[in-house]
Amino acid sequence: MTAQAQKASGKKPKTAITPTREEDFPEWYQQVIKAADLAENSPVRGCMIIKPYGYAIWENMQRIFDDMIKDMGVQNAYFPLLIPLSFMTREAEHVEGFAKECAVVTHHRLEEGPDGDLIPAGKLDEPFVIRPTSEMIIGDAMSRWVQSYRDLPMKLNQWCNVMRWEMRTRMFLRTSEFLWQEGHNAFETEDEAREDSMKMLRTYVDFAKNDLAIPTIPGEKTADERFPGAVATYTFEAMMQDGKALQSGTSHFMGQNFSKSCGIDFQGRDGQEHHAYTTSWGISTRLIGSLIMTHADDDGMIMPPRVAPYHVAIIPVVRDESTTAVMAYCEKLASRLKEQGIRVHLDTSDERTPNKMWGAIKKGIPVRVEIGQREMDENSLTHVRRDLGRDSKTTCSVDDFVNTVAGLLDQVQDNLLARAQTFLDSHIFDIKSLDEMKDFYAANSLGFVRIDTQLLEDSQFEQIKKDFALTPRCIPFADEGQKVIVGKSY
Amino acid sequence: MTAQAQKASGKKPKTAITPTREEDFPEWYQQVIKAADLAENSPVRGCMIIKPYGYAIWENMQRIFDDMIKDMGVQNAYFPLLIPLSFMTREAEHVEGFAKECAVVTHHRLEEGPDGDLIPAGKLDEPFVIRPTSEMIIGDAMSRWVQSYRDLPMKLNQWCNVMRWEMRTRMFLRTSEFLWQEGHNAFETEDEAREDSMKMLRTYVDFAKNDLAIPTIPGEKTADERFPGAVATYTFEAMMQDGKALQSGTSHFMGQNFSKSCGIDFQGRDGQEHHAYTTSWGISTRLIGSLIMTHADDDGMIMPPRVAPYHVAIIPVVRDESTTAVMAYCEKLASRLKEQGIRVHLDTSDERTPNKMWGAIKKGIPVRVEIGQREMDENSLTHVRRDLGRDSKTTCSVDDFVNTVAGLLDQVQDNLLARAQTFLDSHIFDIKSLDEMKDFYAANSLGFVRIDTQLLEDSQFEQIKKDFALTPRCIPFADEGQKVIVGKSY
Repeated sequence: MTAQAQKASGKKPKTAITPTREEDFPEWYQQVIKAADLAENSPVRGCMIIKPYGYAIWENMQRIFDDMIKDMGVQNAYFPLLIPLSFMTREAEHVEGFAKECAVVTHHRLEEGPDGDLIPAGKLDEPFVIRPTSEMIIGDAMSRWVQSYRDLPMKLNQWCNVMRWEMRTRMFLRTSEFLWQEGHNAFETEDEAREDSMKMLRTYVDFAKNDLAIPTIPGEKTADERFPGAVATYTFEAMMQDGKALQSGTSHFMGQNFSKSCGIDFQGRDGQEHHAYTTSWGISTRLIGSLIMTHADDDGMIMPPRVAPYHVAIIPVVRDESTTAVMAYCEKLASRLKEQGIRVHLDTSDERTPNKMWGAIKKGIPVRVEIGQREMDENSLTHVRRDLGRDSKTTCSVDDFVNTVAGLLDQVQDNLLARAQTFLDSHIFDIKSLDEMKDFYAANSLGFVRIDTQLLEDSQFEQIKKDFALTPRCIPFADEGQKVIVGKSY
Repeated sequence: MTAQAQKASGKKPKTAITPTREEDFPEWYQQVIKAADLAENSPVRGCMIIKPYGYAIWENMQRIFDDMIKDMGVQNAYFPLLIPLSFMTREAEHVEGFAKECAVVTHHRLEEGPDGDLIPAGKLDEPFVIRPTSEMIIGDAMSRWVQSYRDLPMKLNQWCNVMRWEMRTRMFLRTSEFLWQEGHNAFETEDEAREDSMKMLRTYVDFAKNDLAIPTIPGEKTADERFPGAVATYTFEAMMQDGKALQSGTSHFMGQNFSKSCGIDFQGRDGQEHHAYTTSWGISTRLIGSLIMTHADDDGMIMPPRVAPYHVAIIPVVRDESTTAVMAYCEKLASRLKEQGIRVHLDTSDERTPNKMWGAIKKGIPVRVEIGQREMDENSLTHVRRDLGRDSKTTCSVDDFVNTVAGLLDQVQDNLLARAQTFLDSHIFDIKSLDEMKDFYAANSLGFVRIDTQLLEDSQFEQIKKDFALTPRCIPFADEGQKVIVGKSY
């Protein structure tokens, strides 16, 4: 039977997504995005359109994380999109890190050219770079705002778009424009700044674990992988279902590098001028890619309830004669759930029932409720968990469901985390030698290897790294600097 | 006594802001922004930095308005910042309207030039324009997403930054980059689209009135003042305290102009292909400028409670020996207020008491609470309304305050609206002839004139308009198209 025929017959095709993860992971990823209607490529090279269902995830992430940082005394602000070229060059390593991939604004109007076409006109004296990150422009503001130790700590954040001209792009994971938050904090002492960069990393790790159900390995980046201009870069690395690493966000301790280049000086308690110590830290829409590759399966997306656009999908199973009454019954349920803060999607489309059900499955709505004439007559409903599938199908009274749905969502959330944690734990391999590491990847094995940090210095390491496209992902805090996690990555 | 000496003596200077509104309104405006710490000019030409206290207003506006549009079925999404030049030129009037003021991206990297300086490199085949508005890029997406009448209405919105290369900029009112929301809706019929553009305007008017305490005059723009490419532009015009108009936002009925140029076609109920009818509508950080020029006075900002970053300022009036106990008493009050959803600023600085009080006044925090040893001993507090000043000073028990503060804030909100409404109503003048209008403005009178629409056609009108820098602000709905409001404007 063809997929088409299966669909027409209303029977479950083998999987809703083709290819499957096993068949072709990168293509499966694109197909999940499409099937769940999360995003699409735009006609603007390297830029994506985040569609409403995908953007709703980002909005939920923003609300949760924004509350977390506000509780930590961080204040939101907004800084210019454009950075004067001369600002970028103030920090040599920094500009070197971004020069190869930045969008440059050189003109400020359009006028008719010799062929009658519109061409750029009004050449600027100094070009501007569209911010790839805002250290230089925020640092410049801080240099004016920080005068005395009394002005410190200064903790700022902005939610914004940034642009890095990526040559090979992939939706959510690597796009020329992306959305993120960037925090920029300044401190009086080195200890405070170091502690802040670590604290922000812990905050990210908690957010990933508790809200995204993504377990990660927190640690420090090796020198080669540091943010351009940072003294230390801390990262939290997640493992996708194909065993590759995804750097989920970073927190940087800048020492005095940026305060020196931006002039963030203050009068200290000793009456002398000092350079501040700064940090910066960011997470982006990339995390949506991580959500997909951590939780989705061969039937589509699975949303962790805490950031899910909808918690519950209500599918009316209607025949013509029962439509009005069943719809009213469904609407009443939807209202009761919404009163409790449950985000509900009531499918009012005129699609056939199997298509409605598959729609909810592909979109990964954590709990699906099916209501037909029989359920209505019995004042009941049937519900199914997206993470467990049809084995979890349960019929219960409406009251019971309304009273227990919050707990049910917690169970989905917990199960997704537990599943991802098991996957991560079972795909980290302690490996003693570089030969062993080579054999591991030569055998096409999935996952990370954990090796002694001193092996990084071994001349053989560079070759293996190159042969298998590996990178040191991080030096995990848990191993106190003795070990390094190595793997393939996004 | 100099201002300095007055400050030192703790006595009230004549006004906290110099110059006053009467002395120099434009400069007063800049000084209020500075005194309230809302924003500052950036080193990037024409771009401002929105500081935390100013940005918090925008966040509050966003949350309120975002809920309003979501209740109306609008979905948020995110579209690319960059628009290919070829897209801009698809709608002739549209591109003509924006060509003179757009930032153009022409290169995608930096490299070392002959002098060793970094210069733009990697010239793009097709330049990009940083979005001045997103009709063309969202229209292009809609052309793919809209296939059948079943896909309509489609209601999309994005919160984002846009850029228009303004030559004469003023913070919040006119900046090269600003933040806004832009809604883009598509419909099956002309009636639906016209009704949508009117409904969105009414939504804006309600938001301005109920949340910003800004009364406005809703109406239609004259042909000359229409959005480039629109069939009709609806506006709501506020009056600043200097009698000038501020266009607070617009809602456009595009007819089929943009659906034709972007290809937003659908199969109708009749099986034939049709062009959709579209609308777009936006409000921006400009509204913060409107808030300031509507409500602030010669002592600084006055925040309408519904969008105020803080509702209540608590000022501990402490001498060394009482500090700890009074601070604990203040903190307890702050907790009780926060539990009720009141946004509280507890001033823990080591500033002198008068400076703390003036800080709260200049920032326009709606209610100021003063607590010293005496209040603590009596389990009481003293509170003052920012809008009424010291005449409203009241001492009451802590319990009474906690129980009535929400009502007090409502009173402030209502009073600000009533004040602004009185000002607006008393500064609109019905004028019968163009001679009379000329005399009105020649006498330097403040406010709008309301004249018969047919006077717009009079040849004398153009001359008066030019002489006094007037524009037709709108044809108010209230006058059923018979009258036009004319005034100076921002």
